[in-house]
Amino acid sequence: MSKPSHLAPKVRATLTDVAAHAGVSVGTASKALSGTGRMRPETRQRVLDAVRALDFRPNQQAQSLHSGRSWTVGLMTTDGIGRFSTPVLLGAEDALGAGKISVLLCDTRGDAIREQHHLRNLMDRRVDGIIVTGRRTDPRPPLSGIHDGVPVVYALSPSMDPEDISVVSDDAQGCRLAIEHLLAIGRSRIAHVTGPGHHAAAQDRARYTRTLLDEASLELSTGRVHFGDWSEAWGRRAAEAVLRAAPDTDAFFCGNDQIARGVTDTLRERAVRVPEEIAVVGYDNWDTMALAARPPLTTIDVDLTEIGRVAALRLLAAIDENPQPGGVQVPCRLVVRESA
Amino acid sequence: MSKPSHLAPKVRATLTDVAAHAGVSVGTASKALSGTGRMRPETRQRVLDAVRALDFRPNQQAQSLHSGRSWTVGLMTTDGIGRFSTPVLLGAEDALGAGKISVLLCDTRGDAIREQHHLRNLMDRRVDGIIVTGRRTDPRPPLSGIHDGVPVVYALSPSMDPEDISVVSDDAQGCRLAIEHLLAIGRSRIAHVTGPGHHAAAQDRARYTRTLLDEASLELSTGRVHFGDWSEAWGRRAAEAVLRAAPDTDAFFCGNDQIARGVTDTLRERAVRVPEEIAVVGYDNWDTMALAARPPLTTIDVDLTEIGRVAALRLLAAIDENPQPGGVQVPCRLVVRESA
Repeated sequence: MSKPSHLAPKVRATLTDVAAHAGVSVGTASKALSGTGRMRPETRQRVLDAVRALDFRPNQQAQSLHSGRSWTVGLMTTDGIGRFSTPVLLGAEDALGAGKISVLLCDTRGDAIREQHHLRNLMDRRVDGIIVTGRRTDPRPPLSGIHDGVPVVYALSPSMDPEDISVVSDDAQGCRLAIEHLLAIGRSRIAHVTGPGHHAAAQDRARYTRTLLDEASLELSTGRVHFGDWSEAWGRRAAEAVLRAAPDTDAFFCGNDQIARGVTDTLRERAVRVPEEIAVVGYDNWDTMALAARPPLTTIDVDLTEIGRVAALRLLAAIDENPQPGGVQVPCRLVVRESA
Repeated sequence: MSKPSHLAPKVRATLTDVAAHAGVSVGTASKALSGTGRMRPETRQRVLDAVRALDFRPNQQAQSLHSGRSWTVGLMTTDGIGRFSTPVLLGAEDALGAGKISVLLCDTRGDAIREQHHLRNLMDRRVDGIIVTGRRTDPRPPLSGIHDGVPVVYALSPSMDPEDISVVSDDAQGCRLAIEHLLAIGRSRIAHVTGPGHHAAAQDRARYTRTLLDEASLELSTGRVHFGDWSEAWGRRAAEAVLRAAPDTDAFFCGNDQIARGVTDTLRERAVRVPEEIAVVGYDNWDTMALAARPPLTTIDVDLTEIGRVAALRLLAAIDENPQPGGVQVPCRLVVRESA
């Protein structure tokens, strides 16, 4: 069986081919392409015409040696490529691709030895910069072993060093959107069910929630935050506990969509009408979870793609020697569906 | 505020530094490193000692120009980086990373112009090979515009050209595991609920299911396959339809875990005991879905990470001029939880 014609090998034109086609020396062709050296405009035009005719593309490796830039950026995820890092990667890849920069993917899986291995490799490949991302919003130690002049941007998981460039979600504003929405629809007995207390995401959202209720002269319906884990099973159990402790609860604000979905499942089984009797707001806007819930979840979209995009733009600015150090907070959006 | 010391710039040793440290000329240092040229063993050893002392690492770009290999592989996803392509990427990155090959990430989002753009870029960067992956198991047209000698491996989404290297999941064997398990636990009135009829994954699994039941002299409990979409909502609706049409149904084999979860939710609300009265088997082993279902789902694990790993190993073999063209089917595993 013969291979179809679209798989036929293409022979790449070389600079020698271009020079021969234009009737000039290789040296002249090279100068015409780099814009250096003196020559008649017609000569330069003949070379450029030959480049087009032969679809000549200069070897990027050779170009890199010349320009000192590799037009390559490292994208390092610290804890696997999962639901959180994927949209960040996509946003970054999108912004970088538009600038014709290639992305070298490294996954360190939270392992310090893997991180050092990847980092040495990225340095050896002379990347122009690095974006670091991870699932957790807890601040992480800055990368060590970066060569001078190679900028690093931290996305979603900020650096512990406040002088580093870190692009994160604005959790304070996200919580404000959620609580203000619940207050606007007349709720005043609000419970907060969230993930593990040792995760910054859970701790921060709980603190903001308390502060916002305090501003409205309200308290949590059960008098405390319900820390647990990020699962539906925890949401189901916590809903039972909240209804036992504070039967007059009229809203749940949950630390993520899985918890919120678990809460709605418990309410559904107890024949509590959502949102008429009890409203539920999630966090993340993970569509698979939010749309499959009954009813579909009102939730806070943390705009992970935008975090990736902003991180890439900051990195490009830093590569162009226009760094804007410090933290950037990307705003959240309230997505209103049926649960609140 | 001063930067912490781990961010202090590192000055890279150059070949000149190595030569000076070893007390030889730059030319001799270069020959000692490349293993070319004649010199006394002691001289070569002095150079190698200097390399270690100075932590000298040769510029990979310069090395690539010399070896003709870039030690870089393109990883192209055709429809976003999602739940299916992510484990494939991870498996590939793992296998390639062990061979010290870097991964250039490209996401074409099913757009032909983006695909061509990325492909030109990968060719310009002289990648040693390309892995193409996507969400759909439907065969896809081979990449066009690949230079001679650059091998391509298709993972999960096979190439339409049977001479290309394609690594896919063994759906026939996966369906056999599911149906044999249901028969082994005494079920004979099996319904099949799955995704859209125009998706190969749905069509193939339906055909294998019919064949397997036929081998056991059985028929589908409702006499037909229930094609729909890959969602929980469809699973919930389809379960109602199946119970109406064939109340004696004693098992559901579902085309994915979301559908299976929808089925279990409907059964739960109708107070049908799972698996005692009706068993449910899913497909994919998407843990978020399978573990949150009540009861947790027995399902078929398609081992996406292994597909990525095998694809990377095939690519490495092809790069080493030992290609093994044609299809590779990676076996599935039955994961028994509580639903069957």
